[in-house]
Amino acid sequence: MSAVGKLIGVGLGPGDPELVTLKAARTLGEAEVVAFFAKRGAAGHARRIAAPHLRSGVTELPLFFPVTTEIPKCSTGYRDALCAFYDDAAETIAQRLENGRNVVVLCEGDPLFYGSYMHVHARLAPRFSAEIVAGVTGMSGCWSAAGAPMAQGDDVFTVLPATLPEAELARRLSDADAAVVMKVGRHLPKLRRALQRSGRLHRALYVERGTMADAKMLPLAAKRDDAAPYFAIVLVPGWKQRPGADR
Amino acid sequence: MSAVGKLIGVGLGPGDPELVTLKAARTLGEAEVVAFFAKRGAAGHARRIAAPHLRSGVTELPLFFPVTTEIPKCSTGYRDALCAFYDDAAETIAQRLENGRNVVVLCEGDPLFYGSYMHVHARLAPRFSAEIVAGVTGMSGCWSAAGAPMAQGDDVFTVLPATLPEAELARRLSDADAAVVMKVGRHLPKLRRALQRSGRLHRALYVERGTMADAKMLPLAAKRDDAAPYFAIVLVPGWKQRPGADR
Repeated sequence: MSAVGKLIGVGLGPGDPELVTLKAARTLGEAEVVAFFAKRGAAGHARRIAAPHLRSGVTELPLFFPVTTEIPKCSTGYRDALCAFYDDAAETIAQRLENGRNVVVLCEGDPLFYGSYMHVHARLAPRFSAEIVAGVTGMSGCWSAAGAPMAQGDDVFTVLPATLPEAELARRLSDADAAVVMKVGRHLPKLRRALQRSGRLHRALYVERGTMADAKMLPLAAKRDDAAPYFAIVLVPGWKQRPGADR
Repeated sequence: MSAVGKLIGVGLGPGDPELVTLKAARTLGEAEVVAFFAKRGAAGHARRIAAPHLRSGVTELPLFFPVTTEIPKCSTGYRDALCAFYDDAAETIAQRLENGRNVVVLCEGDPLFYGSYMHVHARLAPRFSAEIVAGVTGMSGCWSAAGAPMAQGDDVFTVLPATLPEAELARRLSDADAAVVMKVGRHLPKLRRALQRSGRLHRALYVERGTMADAKMLPLAAKRDDAAPYFAIVLVPGWKQRPGADR
C-alpha cells in the first residue's frame, strides 16, 4: 500500500440530488476526508448535494473563497487573491494526502468541465495520484429539464461565455448548429442582440436554476425583461427532426 | 390519473455501470416497459448497462436498426430506411403509451446530446408527455478517465464531427479554446493534419472505449498509426493553469 493518499474529484451533477451517480454515492460513503469550495456563510451547494451520502464523523475541509465585495473581479488584486487562495486550498489538501489519507473533493456538475476543482487538480495531480468521477453537467441538467433536443448527427455544438463582445457572440452563434451560453447575468441585453443578429433568437431558451424545484425556463423571446442572475444560461437547441441524419 | 402513459428517456452514462445516476436506477427499477435501440444480433450497450436495475418480468421492446451492409450510409436509400425505422419505432412505443403504459427508453450517455432517442422524442413529445433523466455524456466519461481538465472560466468549448473537411476542422479547432472531436474512425489522418495546422496536435489526446475496462488513451502525437474505430474520440483540453481565470 502506498503511504500517500489519493486525490478524488467527484462530480455531483447539476443539483437534483437524484442526479448523483452510483459511483459518486459509493465514493462519498467511503470518504474519510471531504473538501469542498464554498462562500463563507453559505452552506455550499456541493456539500448539500453530498450530505445524504457522507458517513458521520467524516472530516470536512471547507475551502472558503476569499471575500470579494471590495475588490473588482477583473482586477489584478482579485486574481492575486484567488491565486493565493487556490495555492492554500491545494496545500490544505496536500497535507492530508501526505499523511496517507484519500481526499474527496466535492464538485458540482462534472469535475473537469468549468469547475473550481481544476485549480486544485492542476496543482496536485503532478504530485499525487488523482481519480475523477465524471458527473452530469449543469447544462445537461438544464436541457433535460427543458426537454430540448440539443445536438445530433454531425452537428457542431459550442459552449460560449456571455462575456464575449456582441459581434463575437453573434459570429460564433451563427457558426454553430447548437449552443449553450453561460454566465448570462448582466450580459443578457447584449446576448439577446447577438442571438437576433445570428438568427437564433427564435430557438433560444432561457433557463434559471436548471434542475432545482424552482427552475424557471421559457423561450428567451417571451422573457420580457433583461434581468438575469449570473448563473442563468441560454440554450440554443440545434436539432430539428432530420430523419436519417444521425449516422 | 391520465389514461395515457408517459415517455421517459433515461440517460445511462458513458458505459461504466457505476456512472448510472440514482434517478436512472430508480426509474429503471420502476419500469414496466423498456425500449432500446440495438443492432440485430448484438446485446445492445444500453440494455447491458441497464440490466442490473430492471425487474424481472419487465416488458422489453428492442428496436433493431435496419441492416445496412448493402446500402451506403450516405445514400437516399439508407436515409429513407432509417426514417421508416424511426417512424416504426415511435409507433411501437406510441401503442404502449396509448394503452396507458409508461415507456422507458434506454439511452447511452445523455438522451438529448447526440443520441438516437431524439428521433423518437421528436416524433412523440408533441403527442405524449415526456420526461428526461439526464446522464453523464460519453465525452465526460472520456476526459475523466484521461484526467484531462477540459474547459474553465471564459473558455469557448466546441464539439466537432471528424467528418468535416480538413480546412474547416482546422479553422474551428483554431477558433476554440477546447474541443472534442467525435466519429474519428477513418478520418484520423485528416484530423491529425487539421490539428497540426491549428497548432493543437501537441495537446490532443486519442481515446478509444473511454470508460471501458479496456480503454485506450494516449497523446495523439504518440499514436503511430492512423487506424481508429468509428467511435474513437479526440480530446483537445483547453485548460492550463491560469490562476484567477475562473470567475
